[in-house]
Amino acid sequence: MANRNPPSKGFVLDPKLDEDTIEINRLHFCRVLLMNDSNYPWLILVPQIQNIRELHELPPKYLSEVISEIVSISKEMQELFKPDKINVAALGNQVSQLHIHIIARFKNDIAWPFPVWGVNPIKKYNDEELKKLTLVLQAKLFS
Amino acid sequence: MANRNPPSKGFVLDPKLDEDTIEINRLHFCRVLLMNDSNYPWLILVPQIQNIRELHELPPKYLSEVISEIVSISKEMQELFKPDKINVAALGNQVSQLHIHIIARFKNDIAWPFPVWGVNPIKKYNDEELKKLTLVLQAKLFS
Repeated sequence: MANRNPPSKGFVLDPKLDEDTIEINRLHFCRVLLMNDSNYPWLILVPQIQNIRELHELPPKYLSEVISEIVSISKEMQELFKPDKINVAALGNQVSQLHIHIIARFKNDIAWPFPVWGVNPIKKYNDEELKKLTLVLQAKLFS
Repeated sequence: MANRNPPSKGFVLDPKLDEDTIEINRLHFCRVLLMNDSNYPWLILVPQIQNIRELHELPPKYLSEVISEIVSISKEMQELFKPDKINVAALGNQVSQLHIHIIARFKNDIAWPFPVWGVNPIKKYNDEELKKLTLVLQAKLFS
């Protein structure tokens, strides 16, 4: 893929994102992280480009690739989890490194109909749940 | 613009979005609405396509146009309001018609660093504020 000029040179994941998530895969542009919160199927895409804070700061050629990966993961989450809604958001008030939340939401999840941030305490996966979900995600989303 | 096949035929804005916002402009793909909440500069883009709930449901040719309008408005809000962060989000748990929030956030706004939804009661603009802001937005964002 060298001819597509992967933008990851010098990229370092923000320590807070690293702490709160488990890496599931690396796509061409984005690192795919699982938020360690079993309340919702919650992935975070991080474009592997250093010093970008906003979607609109992405160079156009990178933006279209990042959007393509967001859409692809959203579709795969829809198919895998069959949620009532997908929430997609680039917020970044607390972690400024550009990252995009993709969250499968259900009418019976504990935050519905409100957004997930700050509504409920995080409920970490146990080791068994984490191993199982990681395998499912890797098999279904990236096979 | 007829040759670009504007997707607005038969489009009807969701009544809740209509109630909570003031229309500022119509771009080629999206209607641009001002959220009637003076706590934050808060625009909502609504792709004028009927029966679309999710970003990933947009046909690719429409998606790239919608993303282009999101990025364009985000850049213009950054320049106009000089916020500390732009929040971009497609949630839709309460209003399912696809709509994208673009919110200028400041470290001294009343919800910072949390997302804006449900944190504070809405504070409507008075008539004078609304008239002034509408004129500023129309002049700066769409001239």
